[in-house]
Amino acid sequence: MKKFVNRIDDAAAEGLAGFAAAYPDHVVLGENARFVRRRHTVPGKVALISGGGSGHEPLHAGFVGTGMLDAACPGHIFTSPTPGQVEAAMGAVEVGAGCLLIVKNYAGDRLNFAMAAEAADRAVQTVVVGDEVLVGSSADGERRGLAGTLVVEKILGASAERGLDLKMLRELGERVVERTRTIGVTLSSCSPHFVRGPTVELGPEEIEFGVGIHGELGRRRASLRPARALVDDMVAAIIADTGSLAGEEILLFVNGLGATPLMELHLMFGLAEEALSAAGARIVRRLVGTYVTSLDTAGCSLTVTRLDAEMTAAWDEPVDTPALRWGC
Amino acid sequence: MKKFVNRIDDAAAEGLAGFAAAYPDHVVLGENARFVRRRHTVPGKVALISGGGSGHEPLHAGFVGTGMLDAACPGHIFTSPTPGQVEAAMGAVEVGAGCLLIVKNYAGDRLNFAMAAEAADRAVQTVVVGDEVLVGSSADGERRGLAGTLVVEKILGASAERGLDLKMLRELGERVVERTRTIGVTLSSCSPHFVRGPTVELGPEEIEFGVGIHGELGRRRASLRPARALVDDMVAAIIADTGSLAGEEILLFVNGLGATPLMELHLMFGLAEEALSAAGARIVRRLVGTYVTSLDTAGCSLTVTRLDAEMTAAWDEPVDTPALRWGC
Repeated sequence: MKKFVNRIDDAAAEGLAGFAAAYPDHVVLGENARFVRRRHTVPGKVALISGGGSGHEPLHAGFVGTGMLDAACPGHIFTSPTPGQVEAAMGAVEVGAGCLLIVKNYAGDRLNFAMAAEAADRAVQTVVVGDEVLVGSSADGERRGLAGTLVVEKILGASAERGLDLKMLRELGERVVERTRTIGVTLSSCSPHFVRGPTVELGPEEIEFGVGIHGELGRRRASLRPARALVDDMVAAIIADTGSLAGEEILLFVNGLGATPLMELHLMFGLAEEALSAAGARIVRRLVGTYVTSLDTAGCSLTVTRLDAEMTAAWDEPVDTPALRWGC
Repeated sequence: MKKFVNRIDDAAAEGLAGFAAAYPDHVVLGENARFVRRRHTVPGKVALISGGGSGHEPLHAGFVGTGMLDAACPGHIFTSPTPGQVEAAMGAVEVGAGCLLIVKNYAGDRLNFAMAAEAADRAVQTVVVGDEVLVGSSADGERRGLAGTLVVEKILGASAERGLDLKMLRELGERVVERTRTIGVTLSSCSPHFVRGPTVELGPEEIEFGVGIHGELGRRRASLRPARALVDDMVAAIIADTGSLAGEEILLFVNGLGATPLMELHLMFGLAEEALSAAGARIVRRLVGTYVTSLDTAGCSLTVTRLDAEMTAAWDEPVDTPALRWGC
């Protein structure tokens, strides 16, 4: 695969350096480029730290800034950051009110963030994000952390800014996770820099249904159908998981996995809004864009969050980060 | 090619409808879905209208809103809007101070916007955007409108909001075009919905240098090289066109053409900032992201705008559109 890189092994680090160069008002590259941190910390505020493998940009570094994260620790491509990276980030941004770690539900991430938390000489709590809708043969499996991670980071970021303490933030985070579900489909796999071709070969009429964000197989293979039928399947999978959405106020978030044009994401958004409205949901907040990616995967996911008043208010608070901005 | 669509022929229209559904606070879909307009017009302000073929999203519809465009007219994929679309948009958003049309330099767009202007019973002026760096065999050709169109729309949008009249806006627009240059490279062509495969076949080590935004051939074919060497070639092409940038205050804008991951765009940004600094330029404003696209093309462009005080101030003004936001 052709890529804009120098050496494959340096791509994640050079990408991070370029990111920091592009947003000098928002972020600072941490010591030895092991993390990026918010340029200005806020006295008395709980520090929010996330991270995970590179290749999901703008997640997480793009969400460092006012109203969202204090620091992000990117590992190599599709590889967890080390405990040392997380410890260094905590040391840089914790200001006495403790650290909340936001961790996507993958074994490597959970292990390394837990090791950092145990080694820390400060108050640390962790929210594990598992927002995946389970379908097909893996219906009894673990929920992975997908695009819903953005929703968790936005709502907790705003709430930390408003002064919630560590315990309240953890409880709110668990509630947001519980009320957030994501289902993804891919038309093509991605090509991680460390292999030469796609990780999964799909035929000209095949798609993967129920995908993660690492180019792996989905929960089942399916046939490509018109967008309206695909959206109906995705919405049905979400409702089979959450139960009826009739009367619920929801956030609808359509996320691109990397290589899908905005025209198609907008088209999917319009269809999803129709399908969810027909199911009785009230779409009161909306987001569409390429935010939680899997390198250059052609695909998209639908995320539904059942909002309550506290979550809606936190979603609406100003945010000023490289990748997500409003109200600032 | 697999796409998230219902019928190919409906993709642009359904994408536009989904876009309007996703941003109800910002935009309204015009009559018969022939344009999108800003939800709230501003009394006494010159109306800014742009448009062009679909397939370049978020350009132009994503830039409708406070501080940028009043309306955008999307044609079919890679096809100019009709004069009737532009006339309808003018009728919807012009409030007595006249209309400024911002048109990318393509024959079809120029012709159809000119026909709309001639038919209009109101004051209309036009800025034609041709920001392409000409290289290779076509050095005596016409400059096409590329990613620099965003810069023109941002600076004119802010200036219209501040009360500049029609003539001043046209003159400022011509100055911004004159001081803006873009060079693009692609690793793969795109696959327009109306054909089944890529429009140009590139070998595993080949790239196109000096590309437009329609999947066509570049000004020359070249070999894939490390990102640093590519950036050096791109910066050299810009400087060969503009003359020395030593001491100039510039905006550096790295734009993704659709399928290129942010990691690579950030990496290219960092290298471009280094190369331009080494050439003596002072990078005082920065933008990186996927803004002016060519469907699912893997590629990127560098845009350099030589700023003056008026342009810098206008760039910094608040903007609140679906795709570009700050200061609001």
